[in-house]
Amino acid sequence: MNYSAFHKLSYGLYIIATEFEGEKVGYIANTAFQITAEPSKIALSCNKNNYSLMKILDSKKFSISVLKKEVDTSLIGKFGFMSSTDIDKFAGVETITAKTGAPIVIDSSVAWFDCQVLNSVDVGSHVLIIAEVVDGDVLSNAEALTYDYYHEKYKMRSPKNAPTYIDEDKLEDEPEPDVEEVKPAEVEEMEANGDGVYSCNICGYQYDPEEGDPANGIAPGTAFEDLPEDYACPLCTAGKDFFTKVE
Amino acid sequence: MNYSAFHKLSYGLYIIATEFEGEKVGYIANTAFQITAEPSKIALSCNKNNYSLMKILDSKKFSISVLKKEVDTSLIGKFGFMSSTDIDKFAGVETITAKTGAPIVIDSSVAWFDCQVLNSVDVGSHVLIIAEVVDGDVLSNAEALTYDYYHEKYKMRSPKNAPTYIDEDKLEDEPEPDVEEVKPAEVEEMEANGDGVYSCNICGYQYDPEEGDPANGIAPGTAFEDLPEDYACPLCTAGKDFFTKVE
Repeated sequence: MNYSAFHKLSYGLYIIATEFEGEKVGYIANTAFQITAEPSKIALSCNKNNYSLMKILDSKKFSISVLKKEVDTSLIGKFGFMSSTDIDKFAGVETITAKTGAPIVIDSSVAWFDCQVLNSVDVGSHVLIIAEVVDGDVLSNAEALTYDYYHEKYKMRSPKNAPTYIDEDKLEDEPEPDVEEVKPAEVEEMEANGDGVYSCNICGYQYDPEEGDPANGIAPGTAFEDLPEDYACPLCTAGKDFFTKVE
Repeated sequence: MNYSAFHKLSYGLYIIATEFEGEKVGYIANTAFQITAEPSKIALSCNKNNYSLMKILDSKKFSISVLKKEVDTSLIGKFGFMSSTDIDKFAGVETITAKTGAPIVIDSSVAWFDCQVLNSVDVGSHVLIIAEVVDGDVLSNAEALTYDYYHEKYKMRSPKNAPTYIDEDKLEDEPEPDVEEVKPAEVEEMEANGDGVYSCNICGYQYDPEEGDPANGIAPGTAFEDLPEDYACPLCTAGKDFFTKVE
């Protein structure tokens, strides 16, 4: 089995949210998909270790927000790599309330669905949730975010709870691209000086000194060592200590 | 409910194939997705009117071929819009045989999976099939086809059996694009002469005289009326009589 084959499946990226007895919870999913048209039903695969799962099964409702391509990456960090038991993921996030009562994240979203849980199927590490879509709307004409685009742009790993998580040891080497990459002399020198790319151990984000992190005030050309001590991963907010140099 | 929201969900496009008692069958799916990582399981939503469903449930096995972006469109026509009861979909199509015995279409494919059915869930018009992935491989480094790309490029509708099929009457008008489309004078004239775009009633393919159909020997600038009498839809092979003018 070549596990790299799983990287060829296409997915979007969504925020799933619900509310139970006054507590709002949510997480990032890539496996939300329509399973019937009349009436419209959607299925989700949710990890048993995911705190949101219990709340979805208790409340029997959830919303799906379809994220836009130019997403605010802090949403991915909060909803994708942190637990609702540790932080209030909804602080500072714009939401509306669905017919079912579920909160709907509308920041960085192009569309949403309001879903009523019909049943659930135990599939091992995950539970497959089957729900009827009772409401939905389009918020923007912008392009939707795909998992593939996000993975390529941010070198993000699937969180360990995701059904698409693959242990890196299992991956075969990707075929080499046909065209050899030519690096500018200054990049070659930067790498020779040991000032290379650093990767976040939590979420896989890669800090590339050539690009810097302009959204967080870090100019292109800034070495990882020269980042301020309070620099935090733009995706999952992990500190500098969580970064290791990419070989 | 704004049904246009469903167009914001992201999917790939896949050929699902199986074999039972010597008969090979297959169809196009967009709703194949991974539901667990350890062991790797995949779910499919398959319409009860789909001839392949019975064969998958009987044989308890199927393959998934991940189509490439630059797909041979005749594969979509054969596997997506015709029935295995009417034609041999596998004639002239390159396949290999999976460990389970299912045929795997490798034409126009970037990866494949070999799946053993574990169980199935009745979800109304469709059956959700849950399967363990027993084998898989990458065939090519080429980009995978997404449903969105195909829909935009070929104006293809979802076949009526697809879980993502939406009755056009239910769709709200799409928001207008920000930039007004400017048509060249000759296109304006062509349209004024009644020589416009024609759409296939079966699969939704649009014949645009400006583009012609070079893959089938029809030069750009050829009016629909001037197409040979035996011209057939490049996707679903329907004849000229199945086309109507787009208003």
